[in-house]
Amino acid sequence: MFGPLLAKDPPMLDTIKPDLSLGAALFEALSGATRVGRGIVRDSYGEGEQVAHDLVRATARSLALETSVDAIGNLTMTLPGRDRSAPRVIMGSHLDSVPQGGNYDGAAGVIAGLCVLAGFRQAAVVPPWDLTVMAIRAEESAWFDVPYLGSAGAFGLLAPEYLATPRSDNGRSLEATMAARGFDPGAIRERRRLLDPGSIRAYLELHIEQGPTLVARGLPAAVVTGIRGCKRFRNARCAGAYAHSGAVDRPYRQDAVAATVAFLHHMEQVWLHELAAGADLVLTAGELYTDPSLHGPSKIAGETRFVLDLRGLSDATLTSVADSARAAAAQIGADYRVRLDLGATTDSPAAVMDSRLRAKLLGLLDSPFEMASGAGHDAAVFAKLGIPTAMIFVRNEQGSHNPDEAMSLTDFGVATQALMDLLLDFPL
Amino acid sequence: MFGPLLAKDPPMLDTIKPDLSLGAALFEALSGATRVGRGIVRDSYGEGEQVAHDLVRATARSLALETSVDAIGNLTMTLPGRDRSAPRVIMGSHLDSVPQGGNYDGAAGVIAGLCVLAGFRQAAVVPPWDLTVMAIRAEESAWFDVPYLGSAGAFGLLAPEYLATPRSDNGRSLEATMAARGFDPGAIRERRRLLDPGSIRAYLELHIEQGPTLVARGLPAAVVTGIRGCKRFRNARCAGAYAHSGAVDRPYRQDAVAATVAFLHHMEQVWLHELAAGADLVLTAGELYTDPSLHGPSKIAGETRFVLDLRGLSDATLTSVADSARAAAAQIGADYRVRLDLGATTDSPAAVMDSRLRAKLLGLLDSPFEMASGAGHDAAVFAKLGIPTAMIFVRNEQGSHNPDEAMSLTDFGVATQALMDLLLDFPL
Repeated sequence: MFGPLLAKDPPMLDTIKPDLSLGAALFEALSGATRVGRGIVRDSYGEGEQVAHDLVRATARSLALETSVDAIGNLTMTLPGRDRSAPRVIMGSHLDSVPQGGNYDGAAGVIAGLCVLAGFRQAAVVPPWDLTVMAIRAEESAWFDVPYLGSAGAFGLLAPEYLATPRSDNGRSLEATMAARGFDPGAIRERRRLLDPGSIRAYLELHIEQGPTLVARGLPAAVVTGIRGCKRFRNARCAGAYAHSGAVDRPYRQDAVAATVAFLHHMEQVWLHELAAGADLVLTAGELYTDPSLHGPSKIAGETRFVLDLRGLSDATLTSVADSARAAAAQIGADYRVRLDLGATTDSPAAVMDSRLRAKLLGLLDSPFEMASGAGHDAAVFAKLGIPTAMIFVRNEQGSHNPDEAMSLTDFGVATQALMDLLLDFPL
Repeated sequence: MFGPLLAKDPPMLDTIKPDLSLGAALFEALSGATRVGRGIVRDSYGEGEQVAHDLVRATARSLALETSVDAIGNLTMTLPGRDRSAPRVIMGSHLDSVPQGGNYDGAAGVIAGLCVLAGFRQAAVVPPWDLTVMAIRAEESAWFDVPYLGSAGAFGLLAPEYLATPRSDNGRSLEATMAARGFDPGAIRERRRLLDPGSIRAYLELHIEQGPTLVARGLPAAVVTGIRGCKRFRNARCAGAYAHSGAVDRPYRQDAVAATVAFLHHMEQVWLHELAAGADLVLTAGELYTDPSLHGPSKIAGETRFVLDLRGLSDATLTSVADSARAAAAQIGADYRVRLDLGATTDSPAAVMDSRLRAKLLGLLDSPFEMASGAGHDAAVFAKLGIPTAMIFVRNEQGSHNPDEAMSLTDFGVATQALMDLLLDFPL
């Protein structure tokens, strides 16, 4: 579909390649400009993120792309297409990082888009419709605990209450921080739609894998099947009774740790059962603690608090596992003479990737491999609006959100080439 | 043995009863003199404990008992026997309490002894050998973290290093605190033996039960089979790797919480197996926590720390269960790709009660019942020296070490009468 709409005098298709040397230079410049000590600091709506936006925008201008910044600071860089009124394709990701993060989480998706547009520019390709790279603001909730601030904000989807959210390091509100940077909190207050979902043909996001799967499998890239939804018991609590560890025999105990262990052990069995049945699921209790002001080495614990985090591609699976958790909590609570109160869940539904884009992308990889994304991405916001969305993961060593992220330019090239090839034979 | 040695003109045996009204008055006086707010404060070597000692000594003098105070403040109150050189029987317990404790933990054993001696005095009984009530200092490690300070100190068993132990509330050393109260820290520094084990025929201790067993069984008193030994893994640690809870699938996780749950679940199965086989055992993980500076609701936990406390009457059982724990830690650590390091144990061997005294005491209860003591008591020090030792527990509501301890005078009377009856037909 893209092919026939190339410029009048088309270059040979195999000479149309992303400009990876531009990518290498941008990664190096970003690292140099935003590294603080060992790690990267591109703070949401702060100096680090702004430096990254400035650098990326200057590059876009040098490529003669159209650039614009919306009311809340999202930057778009567009290669104009033949039909300017036709829905466009957006390639995007975010430019902020967690505190002491790595150089690739987020930035790789923006830089990949620029490498693709630079490649088209160099081949003098005029696409059938606009191709836009979007550098999204404030995706990392480490600074403002707001989910998908920049992308949800662009669609007018953020609750105005979020404007009061304090930045985690300096306590300054989102509203004040945005205003100080010259942006307009009114866009969030009035739920203004800065971006029209109807004007978007598709959203494509390249991102480093944040887990170890591609490293373990020896593959450079993977197509993402979907972004796992999350059902989280954020405030689970087990209330028993403190007592002397030696003086109370088993039948009389109200041991909060023993009950919590029994519950979490049961949930691991539920997890194994779901995996055996082919479900996509991860289950994590990442916080678990007795009360340091009341526990003791010779006391039965009277209380635990913990978090149970369920993630998977099927909302039905998450609902069913959460139901199992509630039933188990009631039964185990009774068995152990404690109150095992899981509390409410905070839910983030799974985001399904577009099946045609998935299939096409998969065919463009030498070693086709698909996997779920466990972490959330801006792509989830686009997908939930019904915009056809695809993601491609790039192999990355040492996980993300730390200074040791390590993505090779070769792997980045494999995934970026696949994005470009997808555009050249776009199925939508 | 005791009977034939009664005074010339013996009273009818059934008129020889402990003076429970004296006991009631003493409990009330102690409560009035040492209650601070809701709870009892009889601080070790502090004002509260001293007030209790003064009150008890005054009572002893009013009963014309011989009183003396040893170099470290233990008070003995003696009803002289016919043969002053024969080994005596000591009835004792401690007079200190934890901060905001109850009125009965410790004091009940001293008051029971005085009720018995008062009963003998009133019946003009002269025992065959001295009967001594010992009010022991500083049994509660809440103030000075020293095990059995008063009783171990009396036998010259305390390491002199303990003199530097700071009092938990004011930081003042044990040495300075003892000296300020007029006692001689030199006795501990020189490991002086203030009490000769060879001069003691037997040691008898009445104490409130600190668990719920007698309440649950509807029984006023129980004979103690032994004082559980303790094997404690004080510094167990599981080291995995922090990672994103959504992005890392099960085969790649190094989840410290999951491994710890699997380990503690396994140990509960070991416990159930030991109980089914008739062993005496309690098993407690009273402290368990992820690191609040590193954990997070969407992170796999990279570390847990916990305590595993094993107690039982058989040192062999404790050793075997600790061995099982080490084997399970190695296996589960490998299974979960973490390092599960239990660390060293701190050990306190079980103390066996004298079988003849146990059997005799049991026969003196209307509803004979025996149980282990899970908490430590001064009786353990005497028993470990080879002195025939027995303990009797009195039913107590709401556990101990809190202001809500509740022992009825009726139950106290049942246990005190049994002690007196034991002395009247003493098997040793």
